Amino acid sequence: MAGYVQDDLSTEEIDRLAALFGPLAQSVRELSEAVIRTEVDEDEVIAARAEIDAITERLRKQQIEGSYGLRFSKGGRARPWGNAVVGLRNPIAPPLDMQRDPAGRAWADFSLGAAYEGPPGLVHGGVAALILDQVLGEAAGAGGKPGMTGTLTLRYRRATPLGDLHCEAQIDRVEGFKTYAVGHIADAEGVTVEAEGVFILPKWARQHVRERDWKAPERFE
Amino acid sequence: MAGYVQDDLSTEEIDRLAALFGPLAQSVRELSEAVIRTEVDEDEVIAARAEIDAITERLRKQQIEGSYGLRFSKGGRARPWGNAVVGLRNPIAPPLDMQRDPAGRAWADFSLGAAYEGPPGLVHGGVAALILDQVLGEAAGAGGKPGMTGTLTLRYRRATPLGDLHCEAQIDRVEGFKTYAVGHIADAEGVTVEAEGVFILPKWARQHVRERDWKAPERFE
Repeated sequence: MAGYVQDDLSTEEIDRLAALFGPLAQSVRELSEAVIRTEVDEDEVIAARAEIDAITERLRKQQIEGSYGLRFSKGGRARPWGNAVVGLRNPIAPPLDMQRDPAGRAWADFSLGAAYEGPPGLVHGGVAALILDQVLGEAAGAGGKPGMTGTLTLRYRRATPLGDLHCEAQIDRVEGFKTYAVGHIADAEGVTVEAEGVFILPKWARQHVRERDWKAPERFE
Repeated sequence: MAGYVQDDLSTEEIDRLAALFGPLAQSVRELSEAVIRTEVDEDEVIAARAEIDAITERLRKQQIEGSYGLRFSKGGRARPWGNAVVGLRNPIAPPLDMQRDPAGRAWADFSLGAAYEGPPGLVHGGVAALILDQVLGEAAGAGGKPGMTGTLTLRYRRATPLGDLHCEAQIDRVEGFKTYAVGHIADAEGVTVEAEGVFILPKWARQHVRERDWKAPERFE
């Protein structure tokens, strides 16, 4: 499959890259929030933009083709570093530091700032959906039943405030190549959004599973 | 309501601010993609990070409190410039340039790059949900029936590739303060993800609607 790259990096090299690119992405997250909130003078904004463009040009001098994909080492854990929710190299991702239990559970504590706003002061309803899709899929994968999202249903119990939040999910049941997962987002006062989803093992992956020569990745997205 | 700010800027001033901050956010979007894809040397990455932090510090010298909120002028169109999907000042937003029809329709053509990836080369299922929540809500608002998301159901027909995409939605029916909307995302080959949602006018807004002294904003998120 295109985009699944086995690069066989050593654990030390992976740690070095994480320590290099993680902080770079975090700096861009902070820049993004500053761009939303700044009220500095026009000259300062124009100067900032020119400097940002110059940095981008330098970073682009040597880069991978297309998107990051899913990179992994032989027998090693996958590195979804470009993922829009958990990707440590992706400035759009909060990123969630997902915890996983082989019993089919996943959860994360995280914080959302101004960049994730929908209604004033509140998390965008679609951002809640984005996070719930990820944590439900991770629960399925953690339980050894990875899949692509088939359906996802969200119930918004009340508004989710920007700030410190928690999400969690677990496998509800498995029917053949379909895994049903349920979960929610909560703030300090309790649940704000509930979700249930069906995750389906892609046809191309079923063949490998049947042949038993292939270990399913922990998460397809 | 906190975060709903009437600032009564002139049309000329709004145009000036859009022309100033829109390109700044766009530059950060390009930087974000470069951060995901770059393979330059360690020294270059460390230098880039230091420069980004310095820019952030300068932009923060004068900034609004908290998040951007929804700013508007007397009788003027709302400016959801911090919104995670359509916000022109938000580097996380693609941003979608939403088209709206008073008959209760909304649509946008847009492109998603490496920052919106889930499975390798594909749009994150949760990003599709994020975009559909916005376009369904905009359709409800365009038809004069704005609301906060109550429920949202997504059916993933097939994988959505990164690249050029289209989304659209329309009001299906209205029942009191509940507006039902349906829509989809499509690539050049057709529909990839379908959605239906219920959008509910918040209780605090119903009072204003009853008193007829208040025009509902086009969109609550």
